[in-house]
Amino acid sequence: MTDTKAPDSSRRSERSRRAIYAAALALVSEVGYAKTTVEGIASRAGVGKQTIYRWWPENSKPAVLMDAFLDLAERVGGAAGAEGGGGAGGEGGGAGSEIPDTGDLAADLRRVLRATVDELNDPVFEGPTRALAAEGIVDPELGARFTAKLLEPSLQLYVRRIEAAQAAGDIDPDVDPRIALELLVGPLHHRWLHRTLPLTHTYADTLVDYALRGLGARR
Amino acid sequence: MTDTKAPDSSRRSERSRRAIYAAALALVSEVGYAKTTVEGIASRAGVGKQTIYRWWPENSKPAVLMDAFLDLAERVGGAAGAEGGGGAGGEGGGAGSEIPDTGDLAADLRRVLRATVDELNDPVFEGPTRALAAEGIVDPELGARFTAKLLEPSLQLYVRRIEAAQAAGDIDPDVDPRIALELLVGPLHHRWLHRTLPLTHTYADTLVDYALRGLGARR
Repeated sequence: MTDTKAPDSSRRSERSRRAIYAAALALVSEVGYAKTTVEGIASRAGVGKQTIYRWWPENSKPAVLMDAFLDLAERVGGAAGAEGGGGAGGEGGGAGSEIPDTGDLAADLRRVLRATVDELNDPVFEGPTRALAAEGIVDPELGARFTAKLLEPSLQLYVRRIEAAQAAGDIDPDVDPRIALELLVGPLHHRWLHRTLPLTHTYADTLVDYALRGLGARR
Repeated sequence: MTDTKAPDSSRRSERSRRAIYAAALALVSEVGYAKTTVEGIASRAGVGKQTIYRWWPENSKPAVLMDAFLDLAERVGGAAGAEGGGGAGGEGGGAGSEIPDTGDLAADLRRVLRATVDELNDPVFEGPTRALAAEGIVDPELGARFTAKLLEPSLQLYVRRIEAAQAAGDIDPDVDPRIALELLVGPLHHRWLHRTLPLTHTYADTLVDYALRGLGARR
Protein backbone atom coordinates (compact mmCIF):
# COMPACT_ATOMS: atom_id res chain seq x y z
CA MET A 1 0.00 0.00 0.00
CA THR A 2 1.61 3.16 -1.21
CA ASP A 3 0.41 5.42 1.57
CA THR A 4 2.22 3.46 4.24
CA LYS A 5 5.53 3.31 2.40
CA ALA A 6 8.29 5.43 3.81
CA PRO A 7 8.64 8.57 1.71
CA ASP A 8 11.69 8.56 -0.44
CA SER A 9 14.34 11.20 -0.06
CA SER A 10 12.98 13.50 -2.73
CA ARG A 11 9.51 13.45 -1.17
CA ARG A 12 11.05 14.19 2.23
CA SER A 13 12.97 17.08 0.72
CA GLU A 14 9.87 18.48 -0.90
CA ARG A 15 7.99 18.26 2.38
CA SER A 16 10.80 20.04 4.20
CA ARG A 17 10.96 22.73 1.56
CA ARG A 18 7.23 23.37 1.86
CA ALA A 19 7.51 23.50 5.67
CA ILE A 20 10.39 25.97 5.42
CA TYR A 21 8.43 28.24 3.07
CA ALA A 22 5.37 28.16 5.32
CA ALA A 23 7.46 28.88 8.41
CA ALA A 24 9.31 31.75 6.73
CA LEU A 25 6.09 33.44 5.59
CA ALA A 26 4.37 32.95 8.92
CA LEU A 27 7.31 34.29 10.90
CA VAL A 28 7.89 37.38 8.77
CA SER A 29 4.20 38.13 9.00
CA GLU A 30 4.10 37.70 12.77
CA VAL A 31 7.33 39.32 13.95
CA GLY A 32 8.53 41.28 10.91
CA TYR A 33 11.57 40.85 8.73
CA ALA A 34 14.16 42.12 11.20
CA LYS A 35 13.26 39.60 13.91
CA THR A 36 12.90 36.64 11.57
CA THR A 37 15.96 34.40 11.77
CA VAL A 38 17.15 31.27 9.96
CA GLU A 39 17.11 29.51 13.33
CA GLY A 40 13.51 30.54 13.91
CA ILE A 41 12.44 29.36 10.48
CA ALA A 42 14.21 26.03 10.94
CA SER A 43 12.74 25.45 14.37
CA ARG A 44 9.20 26.24 13.24
CA ALA A 45 9.59 24.10 10.13
CA GLY A 46 10.96 21.18 12.16
CA VAL A 47 14.19 20.97 10.18
CA GLY A 48 17.80 21.50 11.15
CA LYS A 49 19.13 24.96 10.42
CA GLN A 50 21.94 23.34 8.45
CA THR A 51 19.33 22.24 5.94
CA ILE A 52 18.49 25.88 5.26
CA TYR A 53 22.13 26.92 5.10
CA ARG A 54 22.84 24.04 2.69
CA TRP A 55 19.94 24.82 0.37
CA TRP A 56 20.39 28.61 0.53
CA PRO A 57 24.12 28.99 1.17
CA GLU A 58 24.36 32.73 0.40
CA ASN A 59 22.32 35.45 2.09
CA SER A 60 20.28 32.63 3.52
CA LYS A 61 17.55 34.67 5.19
CA PRO A 62 16.58 36.92 2.27
CA ALA A 63 17.16 34.06 -0.16
CA VAL A 64 14.80 31.64 1.55
CA LEU A 65 12.19 34.37 1.97
CA MET A 66 12.41 35.30 -1.69
CA ASP A 67 11.86 31.68 -2.72
CA ALA A 68 8.97 31.42 -0.29
CA PHE A 69 7.37 34.49 -1.90
CA LEU A 70 7.95 33.22 -5.41
CA ASP A 71 6.32 29.95 -4.43
CA LEU A 72 3.40 31.75 -2.75
CA ALA A 73 2.91 33.94 -5.79
CA GLU A 74 2.86 30.93 -8.07
CA ARG A 75 0.32 29.15 -5.92
CA VAL A 76 -1.90 32.22 -5.49
CA GLY A 77 -1.41 33.09 -9.15
CA GLY A 78 -2.39 29.61 -10.17
CA ALA A 79 -5.50 29.76 -8.05
CA ALA A 80 -6.50 33.14 -9.46
CA GLY A 81 -6.30 31.89 -13.01
CA ALA A 82 -4.30 34.13 -15.27
CA GLU A 83 -2.86 36.28 -12.54
CA GLY A 84 0.09 38.28 -13.72
CA GLY A 85 -0.42 41.41 -11.75
CA GLY A 86 2.45 41.04 -9.44
CA GLY A 87 0.30 41.96 -6.51
CA ALA A 88 0.55 45.60 -7.49
CA GLY A 89 3.60 45.72 -5.31
CA GLY A 90 4.71 42.69 -7.18
CA GLU A 91 6.10 41.11 -4.05
CA GLY A 92 4.14 38.20 -5.30
CA GLY A 93 2.08 37.63 -8.31
CA GLY A 94 2.91 34.81 -10.59
CA ALA A 95 5.66 36.46 -12.58
CA GLY A 96 5.78 33.36 -14.70
CA SER A 97 2.34 33.64 -16.26
CA GLU A 98 1.69 36.05 -19.11
CA ILE A 99 -1.25 38.43 -19.07
CA PRO A 100 -3.83 36.92 -21.41
CA ASP A 101 -4.33 38.46 -24.82
CA THR A 102 -7.91 37.86 -25.93
CA GLY A 103 -7.77 40.82 -28.29
CA ASP A 104 -9.87 42.89 -25.86
CA LEU A 105 -7.27 44.95 -24.02
CA ALA A 106 -9.61 46.55 -21.50
CA ALA A 107 -11.13 43.18 -20.58
CA ASP A 108 -7.69 41.59 -20.21
CA LEU A 109 -6.45 44.40 -17.96
CA ARG A 110 -9.62 44.35 -15.86
CA ARG A 111 -9.14 40.62 -15.38
CA VAL A 112 -5.56 40.92 -14.21
CA LEU A 113 -6.20 43.93 -11.95
CA ARG A 114 -9.22 42.22 -10.39
CA ALA A 115 -7.07 39.17 -9.67
CA THR A 116 -4.48 41.46 -8.10
CA VAL A 117 -7.18 43.01 -5.91
CA ASP A 118 -8.21 39.54 -4.76
CA GLU A 119 -4.62 38.66 -4.02
CA LEU A 120 -3.99 41.84 -2.02
CA ASN A 121 -7.17 41.25 -0.03
CA ASP A 122 -6.21 37.63 0.70
CA PRO A 123 -5.02 37.34 4.33
CA VAL A 124 -2.60 34.53 3.40
CA PHE A 125 -0.87 36.94 1.09
CA GLU A 126 -1.33 40.21 2.92
CA GLY A 127 0.64 39.65 6.12
CA PRO A 128 3.94 38.52 4.66
CA THR A 129 3.69 40.92 1.73
CA ARG A 130 3.20 43.91 3.99
CA ALA A 131 6.12 42.82 6.17
CA LEU A 132 8.37 42.46 3.17
CA ALA A 133 7.27 45.72 1.57
CA ALA A 134 7.83 47.60 4.81
CA GLU A 135 11.34 46.22 5.15
CA GLY A 136 12.22 46.93 1.53
CA ILE A 137 11.19 50.55 2.01
CA VAL A 138 13.74 51.20 4.73
CA ASP A 139 16.44 48.69 3.67
CA PRO A 140 17.74 49.69 0.21
CA GLU A 141 19.74 46.48 -0.28
CA LEU A 142 16.80 44.21 0.49
CA GLY A 143 14.44 46.47 -1.42
CA ALA A 144 16.62 46.33 -4.53
CA ARG A 145 16.87 42.56 -4.33
CA PHE A 146 13.13 42.04 -4.12
CA THR A 147 12.40 44.65 -6.74
CA ALA A 148 14.76 42.92 -9.17
CA LYS A 149 13.63 39.39 -8.45
CA LEU A 150 9.91 39.76 -7.79
CA LEU A 151 8.52 43.15 -8.72
CA GLU A 152 10.21 43.98 -12.01
CA PRO A 153 9.56 40.58 -13.65
CA SER A 154 5.86 40.94 -12.86
CA LEU A 155 5.82 44.48 -14.27
CA GLN A 156 7.41 43.18 -17.47
CA LEU A 157 4.28 41.10 -18.02
CA TYR A 158 2.38 44.36 -18.42
CA VAL A 159 5.06 45.71 -20.72
CA ARG A 160 4.60 42.75 -23.06
CA ARG A 161 0.82 43.02 -23.05
CA ILE A 162 0.98 46.76 -23.75
CA GLU A 163 3.47 46.22 -26.56
CA ALA A 164 1.08 43.70 -28.09
CA ALA A 165 -1.70 46.28 -27.76
CA GLN A 166 0.47 48.82 -29.56
CA ALA A 167 1.05 46.33 -32.36
CA ALA A 168 -2.71 45.82 -32.55
CA GLY A 169 -3.35 49.58 -32.67
CA ASP A 170 -5.07 49.72 -29.27
CA ILE A 171 -2.44 51.78 -27.47
CA ASP A 172 -0.84 54.97 -28.75
CA PRO A 173 2.49 53.94 -30.34
CA ASP A 174 4.23 56.90 -28.68
CA VAL A 175 3.43 55.63 -25.19
CA ASP A 176 6.26 54.13 -23.14
CA PRO A 177 4.86 50.76 -21.92
CA ARG A 178 7.08 50.72 -18.84
CA ILE A 179 5.56 53.99 -17.64
CA ALA A 180 2.04 53.24 -18.87
CA LEU A 181 1.72 50.18 -16.65
CA GLU A 182 2.38 52.32 -13.59
CA LEU A 183 -0.93 54.13 -14.13
CA LEU A 184 -2.60 50.77 -13.46
CA VAL A 185 -0.36 49.20 -10.85
CA GLY A 186 0.66 52.34 -8.93
CA PRO A 187 -2.82 53.41 -7.78
CA LEU A 188 -3.78 49.88 -6.65
CA HIS A 189 -0.64 49.61 -4.63
CA HIS A 190 -0.94 53.09 -3.13
CA ARG A 191 -4.48 52.34 -1.97
CA TRP A 192 -3.48 48.99 -0.53
CA LEU A 193 -0.37 50.21 1.26
CA HIS A 194 -1.96 53.27 2.83
CA ARG A 195 -5.43 51.79 3.28
CA THR A 196 -7.02 55.00 2.03
CA LEU A 197 -10.14 53.44 0.51
CA PRO A 198 -11.36 49.89 -0.19
CA LEU A 199 -9.73 47.83 -2.93
CA THR A 200 -12.58 46.47 -5.03
CA HIS A 201 -13.19 45.07 -8.49
CA THR A 202 -15.11 48.24 -9.36
CA TYR A 203 -12.07 50.28 -8.48
CA ALA A 204 -9.88 48.06 -10.66
CA ASP A 205 -12.29 48.47 -13.56
CA THR A 206 -12.33 52.25 -13.12
CA LEU A 207 -8.54 52.45 -13.20
CA VAL A 208 -8.45 50.55 -16.49
CA ASP A 209 -11.12 52.83 -17.91
CA TYR A 210 -9.40 56.07 -16.84
CA ALA A 211 -5.95 54.95 -17.90
CA LEU A 212 -7.05 53.88 -21.36
CA ARG A 213 -9.45 56.76 -22.11
CA GLY A 214 -7.68 59.48 -20.16
CA LEU A 215 -9.12 61.97 -17.73
CA GLY A 216 -9.39 64.83 -20.17
CA ALA A 217 -12.76 66.01 -21.47
CA ARG A 218 -13.70 64.83 -24.95
CA ARG A 219 -13.84 67.93 -27.13
CA MET B 1 20.41 95.33 22.13
CA THR B 2 17.74 92.88 21.32
CA ASP B 3 20.00 89.95 20.46
CA THR B 4 21.47 89.77 23.97
CA LYS B 5 18.14 89.88 25.76
CA ALA B 6 17.12 86.70 27.47
CA PRO B 7 14.53 84.95 25.33
CA ASP B 8 11.06 85.19 26.73
CA SER B 9 9.07 82.12 27.58
CA SER B 10 7.29 81.92 24.25
CA ARG B 11 10.59 82.07 22.35
CA ARG B 12 12.00 79.36 24.61
CA SER B 13 8.93 77.24 23.96
CA GLU B 14 9.25 77.71 20.23
CA ARG B 15 12.92 76.71 20.36
CA SER B 16 12.06 73.60 22.38
CA ARG B 17 9.31 72.70 19.97
CA ARG B 18 11.64 72.97 17.00
CA ALA B 19 14.26 70.86 18.82
CA ILE B 20 11.65 68.21 19.61
CA TYR B 21 10.53 68.04 15.97
CA ALA B 22 14.10 67.76 14.72
CA ALA B 23 14.93 65.07 17.26
CA ALA B 24 11.79 63.08 16.46
CA LEU B 25 12.47 63.11 12.70
CA ALA B 26 16.15 62.27 13.12
CA LEU B 27 15.44 59.40 15.50
CA VAL B 28 12.70 57.79 13.44
CA SER B 29 14.94 58.02 10.41
CA GLU B 30 17.92 56.48 12.19
CA VAL B 31 16.38 53.72 14.30
CA GLY B 32 12.87 53.33 12.87
CA TYR B 33 9.50 54.00 14.42
CA ALA B 34 9.42 51.02 16.77
CA LYS B 35 12.63 51.97 18.57
CA THR B 36 11.88 55.67 18.77
CA THR B 37 10.74 56.63 22.27
CA VAL B 38 9.49 59.79 23.94
CA GLU B 39 12.47 59.55 26.28
CA GLY B 40 14.86 59.34 23.33
CA ILE B 41 13.29 62.33 21.63
CA ALA B 42 13.39 64.39 24.82
CA SER B 43 17.00 63.50 25.52
CA ARG B 44 18.14 64.35 22.00
CA ALA B 45 16.15 67.59 22.00
CA GLY B 46 17.55 68.60 25.39
CA VAL B 47 14.16 68.91 27.03
CA GLY B 48 12.53 67.06 29.89
CA LYS B 49 10.28 64.22 28.78
CA GLN B 50 7.50 65.82 30.85
CA THR B 51 7.53 68.68 28.36
CA ILE B 52 6.59 66.26 25.61
CA TYR B 53 3.95 64.53 27.71
CA ARG B 54 2.49 67.92 28.64
CA TRP B 55 2.33 69.23 25.07
CA TRP B 56 1.19 65.93 23.57
CA PRO B 57 -0.74 64.29 26.42
CA GLU B 58 -2.43 61.56 24.38
CA ASN B 59 -0.64 59.00 22.24
CA SER B 60 2.44 61.12 22.78
CA LYS B 61 4.82 59.31 20.44
CA PRO B 62 2.64 59.18 17.32
CA ALA B 63 1.23 62.62 18.13
CA VAL B 64 4.59 64.37 18.34
CA LEU B 65 5.78 62.59 15.19
CA MET B 66 2.70 63.62 13.30
CA ASP B 67 3.21 67.26 14.26
CA ALA B 68 6.87 66.99 13.31
CA PHE B 69 5.85 65.70 9.87
CA LEU B 70 3.21 68.36 9.40
CA ASP B 71 5.81 70.98 10.27
CA LEU B 72 8.38 69.42 7.93
CA ALA B 73 5.86 69.28 5.13
CA GLU B 74 4.99 72.93 5.60
CA ARG B 75 8.62 73.97 5.56
CA VAL B 76 9.52 71.79 2.54
CA GLY B 77 6.28 72.80 0.86
CA GLY B 78 7.04 76.44 1.44
CA ALA B 79 10.53 76.03 -0.02
CA ALA B 80 9.20 74.20 -3.05
CA GLY B 81 6.79 76.99 -3.86
CA ALA B 82 3.31 75.78 -4.54
CA GLU B 83 3.84 72.31 -3.23
CA GLY B 84 0.61 70.54 -2.54
CA GLY B 85 1.44 67.10 -3.64
CA GLY B 86 1.59 65.50 -0.30
CA GLY B 87 4.81 63.76 -1.15
CA ALA B 88 2.95 61.29 -3.30
CA GLY B 89 2.62 59.25 -0.16
CA GLY B 90 1.40 62.38 1.42
CA GLU B 91 3.25 61.60 4.63
CA GLY B 92 4.30 65.16 4.18
CA GLY B 93 3.51 67.73 1.67
CA GLY B 94 2.03 70.99 2.67
CA ALA B 95 -1.55 69.92 3.03
CA GLY B 96 -2.39 73.51 3.72
CA SER B 97 -1.49 74.98 0.35
CA GLU B 98 -3.86 74.65 -2.59
CA ILE B 99 -2.66 73.44 -5.97
CA PRO B 100 -2.41 76.55 -8.15
CA ASP B 101 -5.06 77.15 -10.79
CA THR B 102 -3.54 79.15 -13.63
CA GLY B 103 -6.17 77.88 -16.04
CA ASP B 104 -3.62 75.50 -17.59
CA LEU B 105 -4.40 72.20 -15.90
CA ALA B 106 -1.49 70.22 -17.36
CA ALA B 107 1.00 72.91 -16.38
CA ASP B 108 -0.41 73.13 -12.86
CA LEU B 109 -0.24 69.36 -12.39
CA ARG B 110 3.29 69.18 -13.79
CA ARG B 111 4.34 71.85 -11.36
CA VAL B 112 2.93 70.07 -8.32
CA LEU B 113 4.21 66.64 -9.35
CA ARG B 114 7.69 68.03 -10.06
CA ALA B 115 7.71 69.60 -6.62
CA THR B 116 6.68 66.25 -5.15
CA VAL B 117 9.56 64.56 -7.00
CA ASP B 118 11.97 67.10 -5.51
CA GLU B 119 10.54 66.50 -2.07
CA LEU B 120 10.79 62.71 -2.34
CA ASN B 121 14.39 63.02 -3.54
CA ASP B 122 15.30 65.36 -0.68
CA PRO B 123 17.35 63.43 1.93
CA VAL B 124 15.92 65.57 4.75
CA PHE B 125 12.49 64.32 3.82
CA GLU B 126 13.27 60.83 2.60
CA GLY B 127 14.59 59.15 5.74
CA PRO B 128 11.77 59.95 8.15
CA THR B 129 9.11 59.54 5.47
CA ARG B 130 10.31 56.07 4.58
CA ALA B 131 10.44 55.10 8.25
CA LEU B 132 6.92 56.31 8.81
CA ALA B 133 5.53 54.74 5.64
CA ALA B 134 7.12 51.40 6.53
CA GLU B 135 5.58 51.45 9.98
CA GLY B 136 2.16 52.46 8.70
CA ILE B 137 2.21 49.51 6.31
CA VAL B 138 2.49 46.94 9.07
CA ASP B 139 0.70 48.83 11.87
CA PRO B 140 -2.92 49.43 10.84
CA GLU B 141 -3.67 51.78 13.73
CA LEU B 142 -0.70 54.04 13.02
CA GLY B 143 -1.27 53.78 9.29
CA ALA B 144 -4.88 54.89 9.65
CA ARG B 145 -3.88 57.81 11.82
CA PHE B 146 -1.30 59.13 9.39
CA THR B 147 -3.49 58.49 6.38
CA ALA B 148 -6.29 60.51 7.97
CA LYS B 149 -4.14 63.35 9.22
CA LEU B 150 -1.46 63.71 6.55
CA LEU B 151 -2.19 61.76 3.39
CA GLU B 152 -5.89 62.29 2.81
CA PRO B 153 -5.81 66.09 3.34
CA SER B 154 -3.06 66.36 0.74
CA LEU B 155 -5.02 64.19 -1.69
CA GLN B 156 -8.03 66.45 -1.23
CA LEU B 157 -5.98 69.27 -2.75
CA TYR B 158 -5.97 67.29 -5.99
CA VAL B 159 -9.69 66.64 -5.66
CA ARG B 160 -10.36 70.37 -5.51
CA ARG B 161 -8.10 71.17 -8.47
CA ILE B 162 -9.71 68.40 -10.54
CA GLU B 163 -13.19 69.61 -9.63
CA ALA B 164 -12.20 73.09 -10.80
CA ALA B 165 -10.93 71.53 -14.04
CA GLN B 166 -14.27 69.79 -14.48
CA ALA B 167 -16.07 73.10 -14.01
CA ALA B 168 -13.75 74.60 -16.65
CA GLY B 169 -14.44 71.73 -19.05
CA ASP B 170 -10.88 70.36 -18.95
CA ILE B 171 -11.72 67.05 -17.24
CA ASP B 172 -14.48 64.66 -18.21
CA PRO B 173 -17.43 65.45 -15.91
CA ASP B 174 -18.05 61.71 -15.41
CA VAL B 175 -14.62 61.20 -13.85
CA ASP B 176 -14.44 60.64 -10.06
CA PRO B 177 -11.80 63.16 -8.88
CA ARG B 178 -10.84 61.05 -5.88
CA ILE B 179 -9.88 58.15 -8.15
CA ALA B 180 -8.45 60.33 -10.92
CA LEU B 181 -5.79 61.79 -8.65
CA GLU B 182 -4.48 58.31 -7.90
CA LEU B 183 -3.32 57.97 -11.51
CA LEU B 184 -0.93 60.82 -10.79
CA VAL B 185 0.06 60.21 -7.19
CA GLY B 186 0.06 56.38 -7.18
CA PRO B 187 2.76 55.85 -9.82
CA LEU B 188 5.11 58.41 -8.27
CA HIS B 189 4.76 56.78 -4.91
CA HIS B 190 5.16 53.24 -6.24
CA ARG B 191 8.38 54.19 -7.99
CA TRP B 192 9.72 55.95 -4.93
CA LEU B 193 8.82 53.23 -2.44
CA HIS B 194 10.16 50.34 -4.50
CA ARG B 195 13.02 52.23 -6.15
CA THR B 196 12.23 50.65 -9.49
CA LEU B 197 13.42 53.54 -11.69
CA PRO B 198 14.57 57.12 -11.11
CA LEU B 199 12.07 59.77 -10.05
CA THR B 200 12.61 62.71 -12.39
CA HIS B 201 10.77 65.77 -13.63
CA THR B 202 10.47 64.13 -17.05
CA TYR B 203 8.72 61.19 -15.43
CA ALA B 204 6.34 63.55 -13.62
CA ASP B 205 5.55 65.32 -16.89
CA THR B 206 4.91 62.00 -18.63
CA LEU B 207 2.48 60.89 -15.95
CA VAL B 208 0.47 64.08 -16.35
CA ASP B 209 0.45 63.64 -20.12
CA TYR B 210 -0.65 59.99 -20.00
CA ALA B 211 -3.28 60.54 -17.32
CA LEU B 212 -4.89 63.46 -19.11
CA ARG B 213 -4.73 62.12 -22.66
CA GLY B 214 -5.10 58.41 -21.89
CA LEU B 215 -3.04 55.52 -23.18
CA GLY B 216 -5.48 54.46 -25.88
CA ALA B 217 -4.70 55.03 -29.54
CA ARG B 218 -6.42 57.99 -31.18
CA ARG B 219 -8.71 56.53 -33.81
